[in-house]
Amino acid sequence: MAASDEQVRAGIEAYVRLVGEGTAEEVVALFADGATVEDPVGADALSTREQLQEFYGGVCSMDRRTSMVEAKVVAGQAAFLFELVTTVGDATYTVRPIDVMTFDDDGRITSMRAFWGTDDMVAG
Amino acid sequence: MAASDEQVRAGIEAYVRLVGEGTAEEVVALFADGATVEDPVGADALSTREQLQEFYGGVCSMDRRTSMVEAKVVAGQAAFLFELVTTVGDATYTVRPIDVMTFDDDGRITSMRAFWGTDDMVAG
Repeated sequence: MAASDEQVRAGIEAYVRLVGEGTAEEVVALFADGATVEDPVGADALSTREQLQEFYGGVCSMDRRTSMVEAKVVAGQAAFLFELVTTVGDATYTVRPIDVMTFDDDGRITSMRAFWGTDDMVAG
Repeated sequence: MAASDEQVRAGIEAYVRLVGEGTAEEVVALFADGATVEDPVGADALSTREQLQEFYGGVCSMDRRTSMVEAKVVAGQAAFLFELVTTVGDATYTVRPIDVMTFDDDGRITSMRAFWGTDDMVAG
């Protein structure tokens, strides 16, 4: 049983919104137990609750905002381009990853792989 | 050994260009032997030369054009958003898939997965 496309769409929209304005706890609650996070692609995959909490704790400690740019949902899976803008003092840094996600039949994320390179980060 | 990011970038740019203006033979030549094509995600994966030739033969028989919208290359892998516009008589149909690709160390595609749904196709 796969998640429905409606569940997946709700899941990725919640993810982008919470990565932009939520707490690490709220983001991590979107993931199933044992879910893997490979961010960026090529990095060792994180898989424990503690690892996810630490990773999103770092993200959520920043002054930041996010927006969904373009999302594709098919067969209970998703790939989506989104934008993350972080502010440090007077500087802003923009990165637009493409995330690929799978879901369980409760609509929780079972894997996330983030495609972006340091070349993709734009300072402005 | 993975492909270099430069090889991968050249590979995906050639792919988008040839899907838009090349022959099926030229597109299929970008793939390694035994490469898999899952288009859209959720469909049975194609894996033989004959299957790829038939699939891209269908694409390349259409009046069409393509453009790369936004590409992410990391760790010898890629995810990219591109646009395919097909023309049938007076009608045009636009679809913007997100393709995810892996490569061998010769820069040939070893797998392709295309994220798009029929909901994503826009007639105009």
